[in-house]
Amino acid sequence: MPFQPLCENSETDMINHPLHVSPDKLRDFCIAILCSLGVSMGDATTTADVLVEADLQGIDSHGVARLSYYVHNLASGRVVAKPKIQKIWETPTTATLDGGGGLGPPVSVKAMKLAITKAKKYFVGMVAVRNSNHYGIAGYYSALAIHEGMIGFSATNSLTLVVPTFGSKIMLGTNPLSLAVPGGKRGNFILDMATSTVPIGKVEVFDRQGKEMPRGWATDEFGQVTVNPSMVLHNIYREQYCGGGLLPLGGEGEETSGHKGYGLAVAVEIISALLAGAAYSDLVYPRDAEGKPLPAGIGHFFGALRIDGFRDPVAFAQDLDDLLDRLRRSPKATGRDRIFTAGEKESEIRLQRSRNGIPLHAKVHAELKKLAQELEIPAPWLFPTMEV
Amino acid sequence: MPFQPLCENSETDMINHPLHVSPDKLRDFCIAILCSLGVSMGDATTTADVLVEADLQGIDSHGVARLSYYVHNLASGRVVAKPKIQKIWETPTTATLDGGGGLGPPVSVKAMKLAITKAKKYFVGMVAVRNSNHYGIAGYYSALAIHEGMIGFSATNSLTLVVPTFGSKIMLGTNPLSLAVPGGKRGNFILDMATSTVPIGKVEVFDRQGKEMPRGWATDEFGQVTVNPSMVLHNIYREQYCGGGLLPLGGEGEETSGHKGYGLAVAVEIISALLAGAAYSDLVYPRDAEGKPLPAGIGHFFGALRIDGFRDPVAFAQDLDDLLDRLRRSPKATGRDRIFTAGEKESEIRLQRSRNGIPLHAKVHAELKKLAQELEIPAPWLFPTMEV
Repeated sequence: MPFQPLCENSETDMINHPLHVSPDKLRDFCIAILCSLGVSMGDATTTADVLVEADLQGIDSHGVARLSYYVHNLASGRVVAKPKIQKIWETPTTATLDGGGGLGPPVSVKAMKLAITKAKKYFVGMVAVRNSNHYGIAGYYSALAIHEGMIGFSATNSLTLVVPTFGSKIMLGTNPLSLAVPGGKRGNFILDMATSTVPIGKVEVFDRQGKEMPRGWATDEFGQVTVNPSMVLHNIYREQYCGGGLLPLGGEGEETSGHKGYGLAVAVEIISALLAGAAYSDLVYPRDAEGKPLPAGIGHFFGALRIDGFRDPVAFAQDLDDLLDRLRRSPKATGRDRIFTAGEKESEIRLQRSRNGIPLHAKVHAELKKLAQELEIPAPWLFPTMEV
Repeated sequence: MPFQPLCENSETDMINHPLHVSPDKLRDFCIAILCSLGVSMGDATTTADVLVEADLQGIDSHGVARLSYYVHNLASGRVVAKPKIQKIWETPTTATLDGGGGLGPPVSVKAMKLAITKAKKYFVGMVAVRNSNHYGIAGYYSALAIHEGMIGFSATNSLTLVVPTFGSKIMLGTNPLSLAVPGGKRGNFILDMATSTVPIGKVEVFDRQGKEMPRGWATDEFGQVTVNPSMVLHNIYREQYCGGGLLPLGGEGEETSGHKGYGLAVAVEIISALLAGAAYSDLVYPRDAEGKPLPAGIGHFFGALRIDGFRDPVAFAQDLDDLLDRLRRSPKATGRDRIFTAGEKESEIRLQRSRNGIPLHAKVHAELKKLAQELEIPAPWLFPTMEV
């Protein structure tokens, strides 16, 4: 049965690459790579699971495509392979963890689990994390609460890529947030969204395709909307950054309410970085005088909330089923045959990819081959000539 | 000293109307009106304060401009004048209140104060409200936490006006959310935003001015983006609703990420209505078989969070000062001379209007005069000829 693409991402994959890999194979490969760089087996397993889960859900930008970035940061010392994770603050319902400069996923899973433990006892638990790194998809952590029948929340600040409304310099990350709500027959509601209009990866796709971007995605160095993706990328990645970047959700200025996306991005910055005492705004991902990368220092926030803190969870699940159903069954716009709810597409792609394997984009495939060779990790399935 | 308009709203006010009223006068007038309809002095005072606070902050759409709507609902029985507010569920950190079908502000202030009381003891408190009505500006309640040095959160569902992404029928309200964070020298951060691109009031302004709307605000009855404000209003307010409405933040489809605004709107629907067991989606504001309005049944959500649940609040306030400062001082886009942070404009307008009075829009002025005459409330300042 051929792989049926459900979204833009996977469609591009299919065109560019037919190699499908089983999630287990991919997970084991990530574990081997990370362990070879000194990461403990436990931390490597957690990190691999977060990456492969992104691929399973079709969020390819946050999957194994990030592995070489993680490897690069471990090699450069920006990420500590064996960090000392410490609980530096605690109350019955809240806590702050210091990630010790290690990989994002291990400390994030610890933090989310601590929030859940606190919620089990006190109905709500909230944990902030500082001194951490890129944590992958925000929805991985919020969804951990779903397994316990709770509502989960997660947010993180990140590398600066987004200009404030009326600004011309990137001062905020794409700062994603995620809310995960356990449902009944109609499935869960899992919102996982960057607070920018699009991730930088989408600008890169348009650049590769030589296409103009829609208005509202990014600005030039003068803070004016541009439809030219290569100019935006050039400005961001050149030696001396000179201005321009992604726009907040809602686009430019106030006309289409870009100030709301900007406000959301700052809200995420405050709860994920400032509450934890993490680095924030353009202080994240610092470098020393020689340009050597120092620990990123970013922060995360995790929350868990028991539904039976407010009402009977069975009645709640029935209402959620009905709400999702009403939205999906409501009249469609001309030319559209389906209305989705958050997390629905991802859950369908997950089913397909669990069955048919994860399609590897040509570029990602090449990167993984390079990693396997450089770090001498046996992975015959990555090399077509060796493939059975 | 002339009133200096800081935002679009107040600019329009100045052009259309020169009458400036002191906040106290306006508050007393609202109290008198509400009491004359059977609302208790306490509830009337709370409601008046929420309305006038919106006017003070320049959020004129949610100020005394809503008074005649409240009066209309009290008169029709949609809103219960003397509701029985009940605590129907409670744990150490959470609770659910039933608003008894009364005005939104009194039960909302009770709920937010209960969340704060719980947070004082347990570091976090969350309270849901069902069986309520329009609660005014979301930021009023979240800001109550600021007075206690806490972070506040508030959200509500509302009258359906927003189409889901790929849909043609209004299934969600403009579902606002607010996060209020206490700051230091640089002021507080108060995000208060509807999850639609714009409120319906902005469509009405463009309709009155005979202007085309920007793309991304609203759709026609087929779910296609339209720039024609009168068509949108006609579709929504006609006897038999036939489709179309406001677009979620991000606009249409996925190109400019309207699905994110749609996701946020559903997230607000879930935490404010479903957690409380309130009415949701197109079940809000029902009518009986004869078309008589029944209680709206909407829900709210309130949260309070102690900063010292995570770190030293003094260090936090210093970081927030620095973050706000960095954003405001960052390079401006060509043609812009200022970058704002959430709540900054409102706080400046509040200072000016506290000093110079609240400018009454001609339409609102006329409405208040009508209310004064109908309900026989003495308010000579509303009648120019009687003015000193």
